[in-house]
Amino acid sequence: MELLKQRIREVGTVLSNEVIKLDAILNHAVDPALTTAMGREFTRLFREDNVTKILTIESSGIPIAFAAAQDLNVPMVFARRKKSLNSDTSETYSERVPSFTKGYVTDIMVSREFLTAEDRILVIDDFIANGDAARGLIRIIRRSGAHLVGVGIAVEKSFQAGGRTIRESGVRVESLAKITSLAPGRIEFE
Amino acid sequence: MELLKQRIREVGTVLSNEVIKLDAILNHAVDPALTTAMGREFTRLFREDNVTKILTIESSGIPIAFAAAQDLNVPMVFARRKKSLNSDTSETYSERVPSFTKGYVTDIMVSREFLTAEDRILVIDDFIANGDAARGLIRIIRRSGAHLVGVGIAVEKSFQAGGRTIRESGVRVESLAKITSLAPGRIEFE
Repeated sequence: MELLKQRIREVGTVLSNEVIKLDAILNHAVDPALTTAMGREFTRLFREDNVTKILTIESSGIPIAFAAAQDLNVPMVFARRKKSLNSDTSETYSERVPSFTKGYVTDIMVSREFLTAEDRILVIDDFIANGDAARGLIRIIRRSGAHLVGVGIAVEKSFQAGGRTIRESGVRVESLAKITSLAPGRIEFE
Repeated sequence: MELLKQRIREVGTVLSNEVIKLDAILNHAVDPALTTAMGREFTRLFREDNVTKILTIESSGIPIAFAAAQDLNVPMVFARRKKSLNSDTSETYSERVPSFTKGYVTDIMVSREFLTAEDRILVIDDFIANGDAARGLIRIIRRSGAHLVGVGIAVEKSFQAGGRTIRESGVRVESLAKITSLAPGRIEFE
């Protein structure tokens, strides 16, 4: 998606050979026009797949997943990263996932009531690096009996193994921008 | 907002006289049509106020704030609840806020680059109970020099003091549904 690549070039701050900060468009501030266009691009890619629900994980995936859900007019569910007073773990699927950027392990959970065997789920997230969050969501979908239609990612760091290994497991993964290498002042796309 | 009240009656689970679970529409699953309508209602209420940015806090406020940002075509910024590897605290405003539902204290932060003295900020959040999160966001806005246009809340629990005390401090607070009392099987609106 050319518009996304252009915005990444404009606002991305390369913090190391592995980390790019995209706070201005994805992880802290959100451009509604760009995000709406990303949501539409995912729904175009998965138009034939009869998606019944979009699943993402808090927080940065939510705006893109919501924009796709608007376009398809299906519910969006965001996995929670921890238990709150309002949650009941006896009614939830939970998975433990490490986070590459955050540097620690979190538990993610989805209430059983929002994933049924009749559902056809499109997973959407902002970033894929090692793929741990996406694999956690995929494990939850498998356990629920729902059908996984595929995974839509805004920015894939394709020099890390997440996208490749999930594709090798037979899952369709569509990324709107694939970064092949990072160096200060230089962002290379596939 | 009648549609929101109707949906709260349909899906709300009263967990105690103080806590209502709205996972099906706000805090875990999101109905895009309802959420888009809530965003539009906020932009209608604050149409004359030349809003330049919408500020919310992760995670449940994000879809509503994003829908309002789409409608006004202004950026949406979500305050983060903790520091990640990608953040630099020397460049951020931070405030410590207790959470009524979560039962613990979190630090919230907004990068200075996303709040300027020229900004006119509309705060949007899903719930207000004691108002600690909203007050934390308001303190951050004051410190940045930006102008606070007002606060838009989807669901106000008006038997708790948050909305009232913030209004008494001179801030405009608009809530789409005000719950005056909660009891199992009975949700009363203003």
